[in-house]
Amino acid sequence: MVIWLIGISGAGKTTLGNKIHNYYKEKNIKSFILDGDLIRNFYDNDLGFSKEDRIANIKRIMLSAYVLEQNGIIPIVCNISPFESLRDFARNKFNNYKEIYLKKDLDLAKEKDIKGVYKEHLEKTSLVGIDIIFEKPLHNNLIIEVDKENINTSYNKIIDYLEQN
Amino acid sequence: MVIWLIGISGAGKTTLGNKIHNYYKEKNIKSFILDGDLIRNFYDNDLGFSKEDRIANIKRIMLSAYVLEQNGIIPIVCNISPFESLRDFARNKFNNYKEIYLKKDLDLAKEKDIKGVYKEHLEKTSLVGIDIIFEKPLHNNLIIEVDKENINTSYNKIIDYLEQN
Repeated sequence: MVIWLIGISGAGKTTLGNKIHNYYKEKNIKSFILDGDLIRNFYDNDLGFSKEDRIANIKRIMLSAYVLEQNGIIPIVCNISPFESLRDFARNKFNNYKEIYLKKDLDLAKEKDIKGVYKEHLEKTSLVGIDIIFEKPLHNNLIIEVDKENINTSYNKIIDYLEQN
Repeated sequence: MVIWLIGISGAGKTTLGNKIHNYYKEKNIKSFILDGDLIRNFYDNDLGFSKEDRIANIKRIMLSAYVLEQNGIIPIVCNISPFESLRDFARNKFNNYKEIYLKKDLDLAKEKDIKGVYKEHLEKTSLVGIDIIFEKPLHNNLIIEVDKENINTSYNKIIDYLEQN
């Protein structure tokens, strides 16, 4: 199984990813978090945030997720993943791909902007939601409306889903 | 541990890689072969064989090898890996990188050309040893002189080395 959390900056991918990772740890099931920082750090930040570079970065993640799945370890991917064509690619390549969409309203995200990503990076790097469109997910397995519920409710919904599927 | 078999086409990377994989299987130690075909197939052959594309391909392999190593699985990489800068990168990134150089004389390889890679692809794709230089490995952990010994001798040398290191 591959768990892939998608959604714009600030949607809670890393927080929820860590909680899912802990859930599996307690059950003695091996999982591993693949997040944007791990991958960019591994490569000494050789890719930027343009559309092309984001695509290249996601493709790197995918192979790692694939080899982990092949070896019985559950990768938990925390990545914006704005491109539907790559989500389709994942759906075709993994044995059991679980796409969980952390749906966050973009205007609200910009307004709150807790991490300061929208203000700070606005004129520096291409940002998903500003310069790059977050393409609407067409085939996700689960939608979490993060604006409407707290993190524990979201977490419980995800675990319920994973236990039943 | 990451076992990385380097060497030009026809040096025996895949054959030896499979034998090492079987060795670990019999010992109930998890290992996984990462070879050029697996990676290129995973990506539906989106990269060619130019220097730039080979670099991109090797970088993809590296992250996969890294996440496997982090999860206690031994990746066995079978890849020409002609660039010393990327071998250095691997040396710095993995906890325990074992670079095994399958040294094969290029003129002899072209003369014998068992797989037909040199004749067939000569005018089609960039070939390591023809258009792209196989940079001399400067810091390998073990050199196997594949022209001077049979495959079983090479295999035994590699296993002896791995058992002692």
